[in-house]
Amino acid sequence: MDKQAIFKQVAQVEERIGELYEEIGNLKAQVRELIEENTRLVLEKQRYQEHLQAASKGMKSNSTTSVISEHT
Amino acid sequence: MDKQAIFKQVAQVEERIGELYEEIGNLKAQVRELIEENTRLVLEKQRYQEHLQAASKGMKSNSTTSVISEHT
Amino acid sequence: MDKQAIFKQVAQVEERIGELYEEIGNLKAQVRELIEENTRLVLEKQRYQEHLQAASKGMKSNSTTSVISEHT
Amino acid sequence: MDKQAIFKQVAQVEERIGELYEEIGNLKAQVRELIEENTRLVLEKQRYQEHLQAASKGMKSNSTTSVISEHT
Repeated sequence: MDKQAIFKQVAQVEERIGELYEEIGNLKAQVRELIEENTRLVLEKQRYQEHLQAASKGMKSNSTTSVISEHT
Repeated sequence: MDKQAIFKQVAQVEERIGELYEEIGNLKAQVRELIEENTRLVLEKQRYQEHLQAASKGMKSNSTTSVISEHT
Repeated sequence: MDKQAIFKQVAQVEERIGELYEEIGNLKAQVRELIEENTRLVLEKQRYQEHLQAASKGMKSNSTTSVISEHT
Repeated sequence: MDKQAIFKQVAQVEERIGELYEEIGNLKAQVRELIEENTRLVLEKQRYQEHLQAASKGMKSNSTTSVISEHT
């Protein structure tokens, strides 16, 4: 049994866990950005929906004389 | 030096790495969903932008001469 | 932000944890052997000590009346 | 999909990898000690073997009148 090989193996496992720690740190930062972009997109979608509803109402009002009730 | 304690420690590290493997698997599935939702939201945003541009043109057309129907 | 790159990164972290799991498994097997060899050596040492004490007594018995030098 | 839960999960994986890094560091120190003890025991065993051979020769010399060469 090569004892130095065993020690090297533990040291290698330690080094790899160290690398993993760095990688997961980078990943965390990117997942954070992804979530932020996601939240931003959901808000933008809501605004677009509101603008589109407003625009839709605007169009109908312009094209007709009397609109009683509108729901989109 | 308690040798059984050393063995238990290696076994514990192994178990924890096994748990981590499961956790990162779950995380991968969720990141995949997050990315899919993101892509969907980006596409929806583009469609809203297009509809809004179309609606905006429609409004202008209505207020000027006479446009019967416009669809983009 | 490149979303596919984020997904690849999670997948890579997962793969690396999988490799780590294998490595720690090998290491566990080797630490087990190391501990067994250690235990065997401790027992052998005890037997040698006993034999040496017996041999030392034997020497004394043989030399009976006059013992000039003694080493334990 | 609960985005904050995803972020917490990445953060938890990161924390666990950090803990693993500490544990493997402790383990490395203990494996080092185990190997050192092992090496010490192997050397002691060799010395005992040599002493026992010397003692064995001594016993035979004492018990007999003339022994020219002995190899065990």
